[in-house]
Amino acid sequence: MLRQAQHEIRIPTRGRGLYEFTGTVADWVAQNRFSSGLVTLNLRHTSASLLIQENADPEVRHDLERFCARLAPDGDALFRHTVEGDDDMPAHIRTALTGVNLSIPFVSGALALGTWQGIYLWEHRRQSHSRHVVLHLLGE
Amino acid sequence: MLRQAQHEIRIPTRGRGLYEFTGTVADWVAQNRFSSGLVTLNLRHTSASLLIQENADPEVRHDLERFCARLAPDGDALFRHTVEGDDDMPAHIRTALTGVNLSIPFVSGALALGTWQGIYLWEHRRQSHSRHVVLHLLGE
Amino acid sequence: MLRQAQHEIRIPTRGRGLYEFTGTVADWVAQNRFSSGLVTLNLRHTSASLLIQENADPEVRHDLERFCARLAPDGDALFRHTVEGDDDMPAHIRTALTGVNLSIPFVSGALALGTWQGIYLWEHRRQSHSRHVVLHLLGE
Repeated sequence: MLRQAQHEIRIPTRGRGLYEFTGTVADWVAQNRFSSGLVTLNLRHTSASLLIQENADPEVRHDLERFCARLAPDGDALFRHTVEGDDDMPAHIRTALTGVNLSIPFVSGALALGTWQGIYLWEHRRQSHSRHVVLHLLGE
Repeated sequence: MLRQAQHEIRIPTRGRGLYEFTGTVADWVAQNRFSSGLVTLNLRHTSASLLIQENADPEVRHDLERFCARLAPDGDALFRHTVEGDDDMPAHIRTALTGVNLSIPFVSGALALGTWQGIYLWEHRRQSHSRHVVLHLLGE
Repeated sequence: MLRQAQHEIRIPTRGRGLYEFTGTVADWVAQNRFSSGLVTLNLRHTSASLLIQENADPEVRHDLERFCARLAPDGDALFRHTVEGDDDMPAHIRTALTGVNLSIPFVSGALALGTWQGIYLWEHRRQSHSRHVVLHLLGE
């Protein structure tokens, strides 16, 4: 019979960059002894995002940063919302473009990700933060 | 025991901009007397999007508009799809970049959003529209 | 009573472009004889994405391509991850901006999409690929 579970995890960041936490999600699914179903993640912040991306060459993550820095650079004169510093609005822009939700099916207890896919928290602020992700599990 | 519910809401817009409807979603979840679960939203349009964003400083929403206006300006000579006007293709671009789906867990009857997160319909056309969002609720 | 189903489909691509597969998803939902519920899709790749977009004028899809080609052109000197060619990193960028997840409610056996919405696989590499999408169905 279908059932659900919920959990909240905290991910500490050390400034801008992509932090993989595929293992944390996979472990929590395994602990709940669901064989198949769907796991949904929601990040409770507006200046960081959740992303499924390449987990092999770290240069991909650096290029993602370089791309965003060109698209919406810190201190961009276009922005008026600068309350928390010149990386504040660029962080909101990056979040709007990449999102805070993910939904990943799992089969036979394993996340149905591709070989090269990892689950990442993308921190968009330059300072360290403590980020919270809510997980919802549906399955049997 | 797990159960589901579905609903469709209509959101009138008065041209380009972000329209918050967090309260409408929260009220519908409460009316259905689900304690915990997952609510999923889908917008039935291709020139508006659904977004979780900062709900404090309205300047954030203005900066999001300014950013999009620079990225894909109305009347951009790059675009050939101009059937409905010079804001037609820019609206599709913005929708492709920000998406029409959201999935938000709720715990103890409350949406598991962060303090600064609100649920927004982002209208990308300059004219007024009537937008439809389908809501799906899973929980117990 | 709520139940779930899972399935994996393969979508062959002939290089960059948008490939509609709304019918494949709708057919699978119908085959499972669910009346109402939620279907979730996850693409198992990092250089292609899933998108709900305009299904009428094909020029929209061409304009989406033109926009991406301007935003992150093949061979862009900004990128260092060029292992698989000059369209490798641009493909990851496009995937990060458009995502690999979709969740669509269905009502009375039909996907709750708008009239002009279609479900697309967006191939971002110039070469042909075989892409895998995992589908999860919840409903009754």
